[in-house]
Amino acid sequence: MLHAVIMAGGSGRRFWPQSRRRLPKQLQTLVGTQTLLQQTAARLEPLVPAERTWVITNDELTAETIRQLPAIPTPQVLGEPQGRNTAPCIGLAAIRLLELDPEAVMLVLPADHVISPDAAFRGAAETAVELILADPRRLALLGITPSHAATGFGYIQQGDPLDDIENVFHVSSFREKPDAATAAEYVTSGEFFWNCGIFAWRADRILDLLEEYEPELHQGLTRLREQIGQEPYEKTLAIEFPQMTSISIDHAVLERAPHVCMLAAPFNWDDVGSWQALPRVIEADEAGNTTLGNVLTLDTSNCIVRSTPDHLVAVVGVDELVIVHTPDATLVARADDEEGLRRLVQALEEQGLDQYL
Amino acid sequence: MLHAVIMAGGSGRRFWPQSRRRLPKQLQTLVGTQTLLQQTAARLEPLVPAERTWVITNDELTAETIRQLPAIPTPQVLGEPQGRNTAPCIGLAAIRLLELDPEAVMLVLPADHVISPDAAFRGAAETAVELILADPRRLALLGITPSHAATGFGYIQQGDPLDDIENVFHVSSFREKPDAATAAEYVTSGEFFWNCGIFAWRADRILDLLEEYEPELHQGLTRLREQIGQEPYEKTLAIEFPQMTSISIDHAVLERAPHVCMLAAPFNWDDVGSWQALPRVIEADEAGNTTLGNVLTLDTSNCIVRSTPDHLVAVVGVDELVIVHTPDATLVARADDEEGLRRLVQALEEQGLDQYL
Repeated sequence: MLHAVIMAGGSGRRFWPQSRRRLPKQLQTLVGTQTLLQQTAARLEPLVPAERTWVITNDELTAETIRQLPAIPTPQVLGEPQGRNTAPCIGLAAIRLLELDPEAVMLVLPADHVISPDAAFRGAAETAVELILADPRRLALLGITPSHAATGFGYIQQGDPLDDIENVFHVSSFREKPDAATAAEYVTSGEFFWNCGIFAWRADRILDLLEEYEPELHQGLTRLREQIGQEPYEKTLAIEFPQMTSISIDHAVLERAPHVCMLAAPFNWDDVGSWQALPRVIEADEAGNTTLGNVLTLDTSNCIVRSTPDHLVAVVGVDELVIVHTPDATLVARADDEEGLRRLVQALEEQGLDQYL
Repeated sequence: MLHAVIMAGGSGRRFWPQSRRRLPKQLQTLVGTQTLLQQTAARLEPLVPAERTWVITNDELTAETIRQLPAIPTPQVLGEPQGRNTAPCIGLAAIRLLELDPEAVMLVLPADHVISPDAAFRGAAETAVELILADPRRLALLGITPSHAATGFGYIQQGDPLDDIENVFHVSSFREKPDAATAAEYVTSGEFFWNCGIFAWRADRILDLLEEYEPELHQGLTRLREQIGQEPYEKTLAIEFPQMTSISIDHAVLERAPHVCMLAAPFNWDDVGSWQALPRVIEADEAGNTTLGNVLTLDTSNCIVRSTPDHLVAVVGVDELVIVHTPDATLVARADDEEGLRRLVQALEEQGLDQYL
């Protein structure tokens, strides 16, 4: 059976001051009226019912995650004691699924990306699952046709077509975040796709591959698996999980394993990795301003401005700023300086201003 | 006897969003811990006791004005039914003073300027009063030695020394707000002083001169004067005052009258006419940022940033902005564009956003 595994453990630095430790990006409303997590769950629902949807988050966020997803059974919202990247996260989901369903196919996806249209996503996910059902050794990735020369994403290079299935390819190579010139070449070549972090595979297969490539990590998972349904499980999780190798599933398995294939997916996708990404997913006004909430702009262009309904943010005579009002903190930053926000959040930490983090 | 007349009827547009219709600049804390009105009253107090201090404001602001100045007898806080510039305001004060003290000398001063040191102000004011006591025909103005080529102030050109009194001169001419080149010439010449709106004269003398130069205005004042202490006074004020000629005391009298003299005053003065003026009266940090309240700046220069104690304003990577947080509205504006704020406040009016005005 098909199970969905939503990875929802983000830490909430890149959308400061809206996102905070206790309410990171996936639990926030950035686009539309639902949170990104709720949108992700709603997008899945016609494909995978809530009874077979799992959410992996971190311990601090489980309560709010459960609150936002009332349809999903509470035991299927799993809290990590500590973030250890995606390989331990997916391994944890795999051992839990296999307890219920030894034949489980996992559709793994991030909680905080913007995707449209929803039906195109589901169509692509169904195709990916069919690839797994046809050959249980396969690991299927969704690749997105790049719309611009993004430097912040990983790229997948397509190889030969797979068994003449339309839009499905072997993977020729994985490429880390490229520089701007390389990214431009990738886009021009037509051979490269964005790695959007959406995968399908059998739970037993991914565990076998973790055993092969990351045996220590797998041993930790095995010790934990023996405790499922028993009292020491939570205690074992708290001990074992933080010791697992912190590694992405890409590095741990996908870049090493055979039978990896990519489906060229026909939907719009953005990871909305920063405030600067908002104009890609929310239409700007004629002056290039992307505004959310109670905002008035005058002689202002190419700004991203967000406020709350009860607070007016008035902007006059400026260009290329990010301005974000929240009840207890406001950000004003240069729009072309994503790095600046990172340093700012670091400065808040260093100055002990934890109440704003 | 010497009476102080504080003109405190400002309208609260130029420090939006901190200043509002109901709480304009003079009733706000911009510099230091007291409001500008409270600082003005405190500066006067050793020179003129509260029992002889009068405050002219507008009807909407009398309650808050009384609240901020508990030492001043309530009947001495006068509300104008409508702002009519300084000549009717001063005329109103004059008729009220003369009821109590036919020999009254008035020291007239704005409520919302920044002056230091206080003792130097009092010394200059005392000298001005002595000039009046020596010759009751005189109208004495305080002139400020310009510290920079300001274009926003009126200038007084000094004439010959008056009776060889130190630092006291006839007035050669009044000059309206000059352009930048003219202002620079004024400063270089050493002949020009800022008109800071602080005056001394006898109340009966200023009324006589209003009768001579603005007879209609004087007739309105006379009709009102006949009602002082009687029941119809307030009603008459409400009828007469809005009909009085809206004209400054400078245009109405000072630029026309004989015996006008200027004392070169030895204190620092600024009318703090806009957010952009704050760096002149509050010391900036090494990067040229003038910050007030809960503010964190990073890689930011030449900005004016104000917040409240319970709200963090974090600014990163920007230059020459004015950023002001208040509980219900935030301003972000280019620092070199004072005009922009005026248009913004106008836009709020036009869009019916009265709750923010």
